[in-house]
This record gives sequence, structure tokens and C-alpha cells, in this order.
Amino acid sequence: MPFEQVFTSFIAALDAIAVGVFAVTGALVASRKEMDIFGFALLGTVTGVGGGTVRDVLLGHLPVFWIKSPVYAAIALAVSAVVFFTAHIPESRYRLLLWLDAIGLSLVAVIGADRGLDADVGAFIAIVMGVITAVFGGIIRDVLGGESPVILRREIYVIPAMIGALTFVLMRGHGVDYPPAAIAGFASCFTVRGLALYYGWSLPAYRARPGRVPVDAAPEPEAAAKQRSEPKP
Amino acid sequence: MPFEQVFTSFIAALDAIAVGVFAVTGALVASRKEMDIFGFALLGTVTGVGGGTVRDVLLGHLPVFWIKSPVYAAIALAVSAVVFFTAHIPESRYRLLLWLDAIGLSLVAVIGADRGLDADVGAFIAIVMGVITAVFGGIIRDVLGGESPVILRREIYVIPAMIGALTFVLMRGHGVDYPPAAIAGFASCFTVRGLALYYGWSLPAYRARPGRVPVDAAPEPEAAAKQRSEPKP
Amino acid sequence: MPFEQVFTSFIAALDAIAVGVFAVTGALVASRKEMDIFGFALLGTVTGVGGGTVRDVLLGHLPVFWIKSPVYAAIALAVSAVVFFTAHIPESRYRLLLWLDAIGLSLVAVIGADRGLDADVGAFIAIVMGVITAVFGGIIRDVLGGESPVILRREIYVIPAMIGALTFVLMRGHGVDYPPAAIAGFASCFTVRGLALYYGWSLPAYRARPGRVPVDAAPEPEAAAKQRSEPKP
Repeated sequence: MPFEQVFTSFIAALDAIAVGVFAVTGALVASRKEMDIFGFALLGTVTGVGGGTVRDVLLGHLPVFWIKSPVYAAIALAVSAVVFFTAHIPESRYRLLLWLDAIGLSLVAVIGADRGLDADVGAFIAIVMGVITAVFGGIIRDVLGGESPVILRREIYVIPAMIGALTFVLMRGHGVDYPPAAIAGFASCFTVRGLALYYGWSLPAYRARPGRVPVDAAPEPEAAAKQRSEPKP
Repeated sequence: MPFEQVFTSFIAALDAIAVGVFAVTGALVASRKEMDIFGFALLGTVTGVGGGTVRDVLLGHLPVFWIKSPVYAAIALAVSAVVFFTAHIPESRYRLLLWLDAIGLSLVAVIGADRGLDADVGAFIAIVMGVITAVFGGIIRDVLGGESPVILRREIYVIPAMIGALTFVLMRGHGVDYPPAAIAGFASCFTVRGLALYYGWSLPAYRARPGRVPVDAAPEPEAAAKQRSEPKP
Repeated sequence: MPFEQVFTSFIAALDAIAVGVFAVTGALVASRKEMDIFGFALLGTVTGVGGGTVRDVLLGHLPVFWIKSPVYAAIALAVSAVVFFTAHIPESRYRLLLWLDAIGLSLVAVIGADRGLDADVGAFIAIVMGVITAVFGGIIRDVLGGESPVILRREIYVIPAMIGALTFVLMRGHGVDYPPAAIAGFASCFTVRGLALYYGWSLPAYRARPGRVPVDAAPEPEAAAKQRSEPKP
């Protein structure tokens, strides 16, 4: 098999794994919400192909990848169905979701950056594409699944994607071949995200004044409700 | 009038009806949220053209259909305005919304699948396009309107879209003309959705262990609030 | 400098200001949610370029503007970082957000309408493009930031965008040069939005019957929960 074919297969395989992994995270959110099998299929598929779809639309690579190669949509659908029938097996589905999401994040950060380089958009935008597409898989899942979007949870999530995409783009820019650059990008992203997950790291958040949030977050109805529910002396 | 023109008019008319019907559902959500007339116009229009817009973007049919044919956007705007001034008439707006949504769902499932066949993407992706575009009208409406997305409500919603798109694609694949295939696709989708609405059917949901949801769904504040509101003996 | 270059620079400068201003509003939402610096960068950037991205995708101007001219994405990122380190300065961040948002709204309404005219889509769709793209910056920010979408808040928000886009399109249609038409469009939009902000104006909302909303908002599970938590006699 000539090198070019191996290369192409390698990318296609990574893409398929990323789609499958994100589809699992979408299906696990569906299981947390106790949706039916079609809800699983829809949320799993949209999550699986969502990041790459945003990437393709922004770059103008249309029709999007899963219309050109329906196998990706088929993988996402199949994976979602498998999760529907087997999701009772994992002890703690939420931890599993976080770790699978970390694998998907690392794969997609590299793939997104690579598609950016392919489209000849420059190193900066290639890194931005890696980050945006890596993060949008999870954002779409959380918005459609009615969960608090992952970027709001103040976890270390964007920075590993950025490090992974940056590592990959820098190595490619210095003439490193695709496979080692992709592996280094994946590994750097997964290491940072994994350490953050394992040790529960979080970045210093912006804080204006202690105790300001409840006022800012505009919970007037809540406040009123609370007052009403307080026992009168 | 030659056949081709009738054919084209027939598709255009279906598209216009689907846009109008979905615009009504968007405007009814606006009425439930007590928005002003521009909120009606925006939510109605976005809902009316949303599903088809996602379809066109994914397929790369740009500019999207309502930019090429502004009449669709005009219909959605006009319908939203009419609803603003007449929405007090229906006795139960929520039931009406569900039934109109069922008509829109059935139309869009067929139209989306047809656009997929036109774009020569194969039967599988054509069906996926029908389902995704049918469902995304409602999803965009619910996300923008701040309602729980329809796919989370565990109703039979995705399966009728799939049955409708599948029926249409299979009949077209076996040489059936557009009008009967479209009618069969519409009828099969509407029948299943209508029966589900009428009898309140729902599919078996995924359940891990009884009573798990409250813990998983992370409603700590609610739980705390409940405790506070309980009368002390 | 020949006129054409001045003209192009003028548009580019307006676009850059609009991106920066919306990025500030995104970053201020991030500060209200106490996100980390990467959350600021992501939400600021997505908000800054979001409206224009939707506009470019709908028109089929791909890749989107910030991929063709990465300086816009760089501005949004830089602005978000600056807000992260300085957001404690403004006394009342929420008011500031509203006023900056008004400037962004006015700029984007004009720019969006102009891109529509450039794409030769007719006056009606050009105005719709101005409104949709002006409003979508804020909608994406609010959906991703977990805030109630701005269109739900029953403020006068869509109408100034419409007036600004309408003013600009009408003046351009009657042969007025770009700079005065753009200034008139900006001024009319900003005046209406500013007056609404200053005096707290709001449009008459749709109201069916007093007290209907809580019933309509479909809180069946809530109702059940309430019954359960009520003390039995």
C-alpha cells in the first residue's frame, strides 16, 4: 500500500473513532435524561458529527463530511443504539462520559487543526479551528441535551484542546510527518485533560467580589419565591 | 401546464406550507412566553425556515432557500404577525401547537428526504436528512424559546419522521412518481405522530435503576429549596 | 488613497469594531458566570464573530470572514483576554454590557444589510439579513452562556435593528453613498435602542389571560412534585 493511502486511511480511522467516541458521550447524556432509542440516536449522531460539521461549514467544505462519507453517520447511529442497550453496564456513567469525552476532544483538536492546515488558512486559524471544533461537539450535545454547557463548568477543557492543536500545528510547520505530529498533539491534549480530570484541577476563575454571583444571575423570581415560602413569625 | 412545472409548483407549495406551519408553532411558543411582536416575528421566522436552512447548509445549497426565494421568509413573517393578533382565539394553544407541529414534521421529513435524493447522496443519507431537518425546526424553536427541547420529552417524535422519510425514499427508489410518494410519506409520518399524540404513546425509555433520575439530573438547588419550603413541625 | 480603498477600509474598520464590541459582551457574560480565561476567550470569540458567521454561512460566503481575515478572530481573542484582566473596573458590568451590546447591534445591523445588498439578494432579504445577523450575536452568546436569550426578555431589541437596516437599505437604494447611509443606519438603530434602554421601554406583549403562563409552561412534573411535598392533613 503506497504511503498516501496509508496516510488517508489513518486520518479516516481517527475521524471515525472521534465520531464514535463523541456519539457515546451524546448517547450517555441521553441515558442520563432517560430518552427513548430515537432520542439516543439523534443526540448521539448530532454529538458525534457535530464538531466536524461546524468545522466543514465554517471552512466551506460542503456537503459536510458525513454526507460525502455516510459511514460516519452510520457509525454514530450504530454506537448510539449499542449504548441504548448496554448503558446499564458501566458503574458510573458520568465518569465514563468525561473520560470518553477527553479522548474525543484530543482526536478532534488534532483533526480540526489538520483540516485547517489542509485548507491553507494559516497556523493561527488552524489552531482556532482545532479548538472550536473540538469544543463544539460537547457544546451542541449539552445545549440539545439541556445540560449546562461544558464551557460553563470552569473545568480545564479549552486549554488542552489548544495545547493539542498548537503542538500538532507547530510540529507540522517544522516538517514533522503527519502520524508523529498527530500522536504528539493527541497525547499532549489528552495528558492535560486527563490530569485535570484526575486531580480535579481548575483554572483561577474571574471573581469580582465575593457573593456577587447570586445578585448578578438575575434570580428575582427565585428570590420572591423564597420569601413567600419562608414561614411567617 | 407541462408536467415539470406542476411538479415544481407542487414542491414549492409543500415547502411554503411547511414553513408557515412551523412559523405558527414558533409564534405560539412566543405567545406562551408573552413576547412582543418582534419576538414573534423572529422566533416564528427562525422556526419556519430553520429546518430547511440546516438542510441547505449541510448539503451546501447556498445561499439558503429563503434567500433565493424570499417569499418563504415573507410567509413566515406574515404568519407570525397573524398569530400575534389572533393567538387568543384557540382554546388550548398547546394542543394546537402539537398538531400543527405534526403537520410540519410530516411535510419537512418528505421534503428534506427529497432534497437529499436530488443532491444524489444515497438513500441512507436522504433519510437522515429528512429526519434531521424535520426535527431541527422544533429543536431550534425550543432552544431559542427557552423550552425543553422536544427530543427530551420522550414522545414519539423522531420515529414518525424516520418512517415518513423511509417510505418516501423507498417508493421513489422503486420508481413511484413524486406526488404519490410524497403523499404516502406524509401520511405515514402524520399517522404515526397523530396516533402517538392522540393516545399519548411513548417509547420505552432507558432506565438504569428506578429513582435514579433525581440524583443524576443534579437538581441540588431544587432539593435544597424543597427542604426549606417544607413546614417545620 | 483612491476612494475604493477608503471605502473598503471603512467597512473593515466597522466590522472590526463590531467584532470587538460583541466580544466584550460575550466576555462580560463569562465574567458574570465566573468562567476561567479560556472560557472568556471562547465565549468572547464566538460572540464576537457569531453574527457575521451566521450571515456568511446563510449567504454562502465561505470560508467565513474570520477565516479569510484572521485579524477579526485575533481581535475577539485579545479583547476577551483584556476583559478577563480588567472586568473588575466597571462599576456596573450589566449596564455596560447592555450599552456595548447596543453599539454592536447598530453596527452589525448595517453591516449585515450591506453584505446582503452586495450579494444582490434584494432589499427585503438584505433587511432580514441585517436583523438576523444583528440579533444572532446576542442569541449565540446567551444560549452558550446559559442566559435567557435576549429575544425572550421582551425588551425593544429587534425593532432598532430593523429600523437601522431599513434606513441603510432605503438610503442606499436611493443612491446615497455608503458612509452617510451607514452612519444614518447606525444612528437610527442606536437611538431607538438607547432610548429603550434609558427609559426602560418595552413593547406591548402578547397576553392571553392573566395568570395563564404558569399553567401553560407545562410543569406537570413540578405540579406532581408540589403535591407530594404538600403536608397531608
